Amino acid sequence: MSRKVIVYIASSLDGYIAAPNDDLSFLDAVQVEGEDYGYAAFYSSIDTVIIGRKTYDWVRAQLGFNPHKDKKTYVITNDSSKTSDEVTYYSGDLNHLITKLKSSEGLAIYCDGGAQLVNSLLIGGHIDEIIMSVIPVVLGDGIRLFHEKLPKAQLRLLHSKSYETGLVQLHYQVLK
Amino acid sequence: MSRKVIVYIASSLDGYIAAPNDDLSFLDAVQVEGEDYGYAAFYSSIDTVIIGRKTYDWVRAQLGFNPHKDKKTYVITNDSSKTSDEVTYYSGDLNHLITKLKSSEGLAIYCDGGAQLVNSLLIGGHIDEIIMSVIPVVLGDGIRLFHEKLPKAQLRLLHSKSYETGLVQLHYQVLK
Repeated sequence: MSRKVIVYIASSLDGYIAAPNDDLSFLDAVQVEGEDYGYAAFYSSIDTVIIGRKTYDWVRAQLGFNPHKDKKTYVITNDSSKTSDEVTYYSGDLNHLITKLKSSEGLAIYCDGGAQLVNSLLIGGHIDEIIMSVIPVVLGDGIRLFHEKLPKAQLRLLHSKSYETGLVQLHYQVLK
Repeated sequence: MSRKVIVYIASSLDGYIAAPNDDLSFLDAVQVEGEDYGYAAFYSSIDTVIIGRKTYDWVRAQLGFNPHKDKKTYVITNDSSKTSDEVTYYSGDLNHLITKLKSSEGLAIYCDGGAQLVNSLLIGGHIDEIIMSVIPVVLGDGIRLFHEKLPKAQLRLLHSKSYETGLVQLHYQVLK
């Protein structure tokens, strides 16, 4: 069985992964001590991360360090001149990268966003599972997770779980 | 306590309530004999329906009859000349109608779509509860439930339930 590409992401009920100006404060309402919504277990099931350049820069700036330093991390960019000791900048063909990763040995591959990368992967038919945490809010504006004109994809619900905070996590397999 | 306005609607994971050309065939995958996903119980808890004119015409044409004949039904339209024995066409101020309905005696008020009416009600702050059935599919294109530039609204998860078909029903209270 080849390696799976899994999107693990949080969204408002109206489909935004961030409010305008990359504002993620809507996530604060579901931050509860001792509750990681399965993230640690998920994170231990992957050994590779693919992440868009803008998202990576944003997360790195917020934290002050690379959040995926224990994983093989590909940062997808259009800028072929970028290099780093910590991550692999990749500016080549995305389909080629995914094909290469899936045909090599390893654990699952975590797509950590952003929306542009998720949509490129959906268009390429590369996503195997989607784990979406639906946050109990209508944000009204911001960055939409799903762009328009995507290919249709049937899903199979693998699991769903609701939490005290009102977060509902939906775990789907993308049927091919 | 004044009457509640409740949106009861089905959506794809990517937020569409219909595929292009008003195609609702994505709902077929969750049609199972003996499973109405709580619709009958919900329907018995309401006595009034508000529905957009285009949605009403579409449903009526599909069924060949008014689906809400046992309920007081307001069809929201811009055309002030429309009349009917079966429903009340309403072309006045939507806020005025909702205020009037909420201040009168009765059971809850069911908003049966379409997206345009739901969004107008969200903008007016009139929606008290949202019951959304998430269908396990990425439709990729069609009619989006939530338009852009809506006011932000915090939600409280009242209930969630997943079904064998992979449908997950999310029931929220809209916090004011």
